Parts: sequence; structure tokens; C-alpha cells
Amino acid sequence: MAITVVGSVAFDTIETPAGRRERCLGGAATYFALAASYFTDVRVIAVVGEDFGAPEEKVFTSRGIDMRGIERATGKSFFWEGSYLENLNEAKTHNTELNVFGSFQPKIPDAYRDSEFLFLANIDPVLQRRVREAMPQARLVAGDTMNYWIKDHRASLLEVLKGLDVLLINDTETRMLAGNSNLVKAARAVLDLGPRMLVVKHGEYGATVFHRADHEAGAKTFRAPALPLEEVIDPTGAGDSFAGGFFGYLASQPALTPATFRRAMFYGSVMGSFTVERFGTERLQLLSRDEIDNRFALFRELTHLD
Amino acid sequence: MAITVVGSVAFDTIETPAGRRERCLGGAATYFALAASYFTDVRVIAVVGEDFGAPEEKVFTSRGIDMRGIERATGKSFFWEGSYLENLNEAKTHNTELNVFGSFQPKIPDAYRDSEFLFLANIDPVLQRRVREAMPQARLVAGDTMNYWIKDHRASLLEVLKGLDVLLINDTETRMLAGNSNLVKAARAVLDLGPRMLVVKHGEYGATVFHRADHEAGAKTFRAPALPLEEVIDPTGAGDSFAGGFFGYLASQPALTPATFRRAMFYGSVMGSFTVERFGTERLQLLSRDEIDNRFALFRELTHLD
Repeated sequence: MAITVVGSVAFDTIETPAGRRERCLGGAATYFALAASYFTDVRVIAVVGEDFGAPEEKVFTSRGIDMRGIERATGKSFFWEGSYLENLNEAKTHNTELNVFGSFQPKIPDAYRDSEFLFLANIDPVLQRRVREAMPQARLVAGDTMNYWIKDHRASLLEVLKGLDVLLINDTETRMLAGNSNLVKAARAVLDLGPRMLVVKHGEYGATVFHRADHEAGAKTFRAPALPLEEVIDPTGAGDSFAGGFFGYLASQPALTPATFRRAMFYGSVMGSFTVERFGTERLQLLSRDEIDNRFALFRELTHLD
Repeated sequence: MAITVVGSVAFDTIETPAGRRERCLGGAATYFALAASYFTDVRVIAVVGEDFGAPEEKVFTSRGIDMRGIERATGKSFFWEGSYLENLNEAKTHNTELNVFGSFQPKIPDAYRDSEFLFLANIDPVLQRRVREAMPQARLVAGDTMNYWIKDHRASLLEVLKGLDVLLINDTETRMLAGNSNLVKAARAVLDLGPRMLVVKHGEYGATVFHRADHEAGAKTFRAPALPLEEVIDPTGAGDSFAGGFFGYLASQPALTPATFRRAMFYGSVMGSFTVERFGTERLQLLSRDEIDNRFALFRELTHLD
């Protein structure tokens, strides 16, 4: 099944203890699409500026990603500059230039309208909702958000949550959204807001999926680990890559059973673990399905008793 | 196989968001011994003061714990007062009175000398080493330590590490001991100091065991989760209870295979998860092996794909 993703395609300048990269291709939709492309067809809705050229285009086309929904606008692409010098788990933002992204109005190509899977990456909840409503055929809808929307655009965000099957956010965002510091209680409060599943990403400790009580039988809380990595080169995009692996795997499966969701959690962790091994999307551009499945086996060994 | 544990038996005054308890029975050796007592025979070496009376004694004897190595001294028992009001993951210490523990000289009853399992809880490394040398028959020796010994008593601690099979410490202690902020590199550096296994406790995210490269074949890095808990009443003793479950299970098994160590990690997490559900040792005093094995099954469901 094809996935449509709406979100940012951007240029990032990143500094980590391993070095610095100027203006590498980034953005949530980019990481998500690359990660998901190893599992299924991916279609992107985004906007880029005149600085988005042939090399960037090739990153998408090489992975067979449908770019018909990537609008070219006059001006520059979304730009972000950040560093992880003191703490690899948390980016320090030095500069954000919305540029053409500031007036982004998602346009959905007709060819995308049969997508049964829809991912709303971290953008203005008003836009997330508009895309969701314009694609009523989507039968599994997942989304992300961030502290800024939780704090200052709560009403719009709550509308989005009502239409989500799966929300993927991190610990801090979960606690902030629920107003509760206990993760389990916070998860339950978030599930009461609409989504029937909540995936909480714990960074280097993996991720946990919580289900609404009234969800399908047999779906229990499940925790996927992250791989203990000797070298984290650049954490940017790990969460979006997790979402891409998670959702891409789901879209590739004939049935969405509780076991499918557990495996999807593992594939999410697998894709996140690759992303952080190189700067930007470097590692995600050149994987093979064999490498992915070998790492999946490593994750199984890391966590399974037998 | 019997385990001998040396460490503190104390009184703790604890304040958490769930309430306050005055002078409840605590100490690393207490939590360890109670947790391990559900798996095997446990013998304690410690010192207590005149405030240690019949009710405290009963906590040990009710669980069949051998107290012949608990010396009664003139004065008061070790006392600690702390709170977890802002952060359930980190205690804020308000008061520490060493009392009779300040001049503790471990005395090993002859009846303990055939213990094949020895646990050196978090005490002065000089004493840890003395006990280890006095019990040469011990074939599996595990130990704990803390930031204070790592920073200010490094030379003594390094001597202890040379004689350890398993070191159990937390993330921060691992990074501090190794002087490296990457957990995998830090773990390798710690294993170079002597122990052939390092168990790193991650609090609410579980624990990871790292093995020395030259360790038995098939022993790979393994991560046990912690249970996502709706109510953490009191985190005191969770790490010592983990150690008790881990080591107690090992001592109860006929052979120490890699699979045994993986299951021991799960039992460690299981015992830690019980401890935090009540104040002090309340929950650990009244468990059944059925409750323990049911929770073990929950941990398996939480992490296993099939």
C-alpha cells in the first residue's frame, strides 16, 4: 500500500562532536520518506525553494519516491541550523528560517488520493487537519507534533488528534501534552484525546507503544529497544526515520495484527539506528533490505530470551 | 547455591510525591537480600545498632535470611534521609548518619564460607576487597559502587574491579568510571578494568548487560526493559532489588549459560518493578513466587515479537 506523507523538506546545518555539515538535505518528510521507501511506495507533499536542485531531487528519485506533490516555490527552502555539542539527545537550535515553508499550503496531487496510509509529519496542526480531511480514503493515519504546537496551538492540535490512529511523539512531548509526569498515566490521557495508539520515543532507550483499552484484543503495551551504538554521528532525523520504518513496514503488510505492530516498532528502531550513524540522510540513502533485516535480527537478539 | 551479601542495613526516612515514611527499614543489603530470598538462600554481613529491634529482625527471618553475620553494635544504625519530590529518578539526600556503620569491619561467620555466590553491595571498596579476599571459594562475585567511591577512592575501587565477575552500576556511574559519555565505549572501558560483565541500570528504561569480548561464546549484549508503571510510590532500593533478583536467579540455576544470564536480567527488572510500588521494603516482604513469575511473563510480552 502506498503512503502519503506531508511535512518539511529542508536544508540543515548541523554540528555534533563528530563534525559539521553545511546545508545537508533534511526535513521530517525527507527522513520519513527515505526510511519508508525500503518497505513500500512513498508519496511526498511538501514545498521547496529554488535552492532545491538536481542533487537533492536525485536523493528522492533514487529511492523511487513520488515527488509530484513537492511544490517548487520562489525563494529559499526551509533552513535549520542546530548543534548537539553538549548533549547528543537534544538539539540546540541556532537558527530557523521558514522561507517558502512559511506560506506552505499543501496541494494534494490526484494521483495521491488512493493512498491508504497517511503520515502527518510535524507541521502546523491546521495544515495537518486540512490534509487529513482532504484524504478521507486513508484508513491508517499517523502523525507527529512538537512542544511548540502543544504549548501554543493546543486547540488546533486537539482537532488533529481526534482524526489520528497513531500519534508518535517523545517522552517530553507526551508528558507536556498530558500534563502528567508519569509516563503511563500521561499515555492514557493522550489516548483519551483521540489516537488509538501512542508511540512514545525514548531516544537511546527505544520506544514504547501504548494502546487504547478498547483497541483490538491482544494489543498490549510493547517496548522496542534502541541499539546501543558505539558511535552516534548525528541524531538529526532519528525520530522521523523511526516513524518511516514503523509506518512503512505497516503499509507493506497484508494485515494489521498486534504482531504486525510489534514488528513495526522494531523496524522503526532499526531505521532510527541507521540514521544516526552518518550525517543527515547519508546512511538512509544507501541501505539494502538485507542490511535492514540483519539489524532487525540484532534487535531480536538484544531483547529476546531464547 | 547460597549467596553471601555484604552491605548496609539501615533506617531510611523517605519523602516522595506519594507521601512520607519515617525510619523504615532500608539499606542496600536489605533490599538485595529480600529480593534474592525468593530464589535461593541468602546470608547477610552487616552491622546494626541498638535501634534494630524485633520488628526489623522479623523482616529478615520471615524470608529465611541468615542473619548470623549481622553484628549488633552499641549506638545507632546507619540512617539516611532523602526525597524525590522533583524527580522520581534521582534522590535528593537531606541527611546521612553513618553511626555504627562508620567503623564497620565485616566479620564473616564460618557458616558462610562455603557460599559460592558473593555480592559486594555499595560500601567502601577497601571493605569490599577484604571480604572478597576472605571468601576465595566464591565462584561468582558481583558488586555495586557509587559516584563517591568512583571520584574519591578510585585506586581502591580499581582493586575491587579486578576481582569482580559482574559489576552492576547505573548510566551515570558507568560514564563517570570510564570518563566517556558514549555508553557502549564507556562499557568497554569499564570491562577493561576487570569485570567480565557489566550490567548498566537505566532506571525506568531497564538495564543492559555488556560482556567482555573474550567471555564465553554466545554471550551478547542484552537489554531488559523496566515495566511502564502507573504508580511509582518510592524508587528507593530499586537498583539493589534488581541486583538481588539478578543474582538470586543466577544462584538458583544449575548452569550459568548465556540464556541464564538473559533470564537473570529479566528477574532483576521484575524485582525492581515490585520494590517501587510501595514504600521501602513493604512490597518485597510479601511477594509470592507466582506473582514474580506472572510479572516475568508480563516482561516477556512487553518485549517479545511472538
